[in-house]
Amino acid sequence: MAQPIKCQAAVLREFGKPLSLETITVDAPKSHEVRVKVLYTALCHTDEYTASGSDPEGFTPSVLGHESAGIVESIGPDVDSVKVGDRVILLYTPECKKCKYCLSGKTNLCQAIRATQGKGVMPDGTSRFHDAEGKPLYHFMGVSGFSQYTVVADISLVAVDPKADLDVVCLLGCGVTTGVGAAQITANVQKGDSVAVWGAGTVGLSVVQGAQLRDAGRIIVLDLDDSKEEWAREFGATDFINPSKIDSNKSISEYLVELTDGGLDFTFDCTGNTKVMRQALESAHKGWGQSIIIGVAASGQEISTRPFQLVTGRVWKGSAFGGVKGRSQLPDYVEQYLNGKLKVKEYITHHNTLADIEKGREVMHSGKCMRCVLDMWPEEKK
Amino acid sequence: MAQPIKCQAAVLREFGKPLSLETITVDAPKSHEVRVKVLYTALCHTDEYTASGSDPEGFTPSVLGHESAGIVESIGPDVDSVKVGDRVILLYTPECKKCKYCLSGKTNLCQAIRATQGKGVMPDGTSRFHDAEGKPLYHFMGVSGFSQYTVVADISLVAVDPKADLDVVCLLGCGVTTGVGAAQITANVQKGDSVAVWGAGTVGLSVVQGAQLRDAGRIIVLDLDDSKEEWAREFGATDFINPSKIDSNKSISEYLVELTDGGLDFTFDCTGNTKVMRQALESAHKGWGQSIIIGVAASGQEISTRPFQLVTGRVWKGSAFGGVKGRSQLPDYVEQYLNGKLKVKEYITHHNTLADIEKGREVMHSGKCMRCVLDMWPEEKK
Ligand SMILES: [Zn+2]
Ligand SMILES: [Zn+2]
Ligand SMILES: [Zn+2]
Ligand SMILES: [Zn+2]
Repeated sequence: MAQPIKCQAAVLREFGKPLSLETITVDAPKSHEVRVKVLYTALCHTDEYTASGSDPEGFTPSVLGHESAGIVESIGPDVDSVKVGDRVILLYTPECKKCKYCLSGKTNLCQAIRATQGKGVMPDGTSRFHDAEGKPLYHFMGVSGFSQYTVVADISLVAVDPKADLDVVCLLGCGVTTGVGAAQITANVQKGDSVAVWGAGTVGLSVVQGAQLRDAGRIIVLDLDDSKEEWAREFGATDFINPSKIDSNKSISEYLVELTDGGLDFTFDCTGNTKVMRQALESAHKGWGQSIIIGVAASGQEISTRPFQLVTGRVWKGSAFGGVKGRSQLPDYVEQYLNGKLKVKEYITHHNTLADIEKGREVMHSGKCMRCVLDMWPEEKK
Repeated sequence: MAQPIKCQAAVLREFGKPLSLETITVDAPKSHEVRVKVLYTALCHTDEYTASGSDPEGFTPSVLGHESAGIVESIGPDVDSVKVGDRVILLYTPECKKCKYCLSGKTNLCQAIRATQGKGVMPDGTSRFHDAEGKPLYHFMGVSGFSQYTVVADISLVAVDPKADLDVVCLLGCGVTTGVGAAQITANVQKGDSVAVWGAGTVGLSVVQGAQLRDAGRIIVLDLDDSKEEWAREFGATDFINPSKIDSNKSISEYLVELTDGGLDFTFDCTGNTKVMRQALESAHKGWGQSIIIGVAASGQEISTRPFQLVTGRVWKGSAFGGVKGRSQLPDYVEQYLNGKLKVKEYITHHNTLADIEKGREVMHSGKCMRCVLDMWPEEKK
């Protein structure tokens, strides 16, 4: 029977303040739960969004982090999908294969543990994390990758090819998969289709990559930071536009519709800016253009447009985790990475350690970082 | 060679005023044009919208009317798709089979004559209608069915089975096709799907019929007029809800989501009210629900929602003329009517004549009318 483990974790004690490095206790996994030794966690803007206090589902004290990979350390009763020693990617979008959503075949938004995950607790309503005083810490997105050990539901992780380097494929736990999946699953981009992507971060560049892997035609990237042009082209962009530098009286949408002789087949918002979401929709081609919202908007913000935009054939939709079913479909992305088809390593610009997580967070905010991967066990040979 | 014809027409001289019955001259059809003896035209709310002055594409003086059927009287040069004597339905959404839109296979929104149609003229930029003083009258929606003769582009009409009674199938020129097509083509409702429809006019009831023909499961109709319940059930509704009478503190969307255990597979706005459009979207099922806008909103009105609604899997789209390609697909609807599969006659509540068009318009505004069909030649045996 597994025992509680003491380990290091970065704890969010107060919104907007540095994370607190603490020795915490991670309880043994209960029924249908798995305890994972987290080897690598990448920093993602969603952690920052929550750490800032803007996320309605953010709580303190909690253990953030959600783009993680590791090794199964122990399993609770009734777990049969993974075994001790499996190399795994953690899934903030679980896949139970049993709920109405999973069975629909129409969505990856498994709702089996949605309510408790949103409240920062395990499916039984309690936490597996306790601080030095024995007080519980909240979980985050069903993952909590900023701890050296974490406990997750057995539907919230997937075993992957043991050949995969976890310091790279941890990125498939969020950003890369979100973008590639949005292009390939949600939009289902086809050969020759034209695409525009707002925001050249990891998600946006992954949309670009996903579209290029489908042999899209024109792939336009829009970003206010000119230094992103080189990045965009490396991942497959054919055009880079800095919207602040367009020499035109036209709106961005009018400009793009003219540039592309009618508009784009697919447009993607990866900024979370609701004004951009509208631009993206209105840049889609009359008759069939689809606009896909990926970015997370600030709480309370709304999107709007004239209904005529939709009546004349544009489609407005969204994508979460790229529409990817984590347990069914993520292993294939790992294989694509191992086969050299899918770029993943290329997004990593910085490495750091759990102890130096605050330096990693600083680099994230500087805008010069695509992905920073934290080594959770720098003292160990892996 | 065809000569100009003098005939009766109802002319919109001034927005918001009664139509003026006049003897007008209808010129011979030019190249790729067809002159049609209009036998029947049904009144539609879109005519009223334009007559009121709210339509940015409405002009005076003009000949309104767009839900029409008749007989080809003469053809201009280069017309090979119809011949004199063909029984035809007129198409405000043309189908050229050659433009980028027609060739895409993804939309029915042929753009071949869009620019001139929107300006109230024929594709060569001129009008075929002149008043007693020889002054040109504007065309409307490429049809102008409130004249005993009209000239249309040869891509703006389709020959139909001569067995079809034109006083009935004229309804397939707009309302019925718009609704049935929205359910069957735009939404592609499948067996067992749940559906909600706001607005129990001809279009809304046709959505209901289209869904029922697909063996949809629950079909909920919402209308503020309780007298529509009987109508709704006749066309296949399983539930009727008067939103003003719901005994609940919840919003309509929350109420429907609870009632349907998660929301509807498909929702349709047939009201043109942007608040309803939002309710319809937010009543769609998380993960896969689609909301389709059919109604035409007042100029300048916008729709809005929180982007979270889309990111969690709802799809917002629109439908014009039900997504139906008039020349390719409308004849099949006529066959379905002739085979007794498709109800069309059932929408006709009133008959009138061109001379009494104002009485027909009054009845339309009373709310007690589903469809009023004008006999354009009451003195003739047909
Ligand atoms: Zn993330
Ligand atoms: Zn599930
Ligand atoms: Zn109409
Ligand atoms: Zn066309």
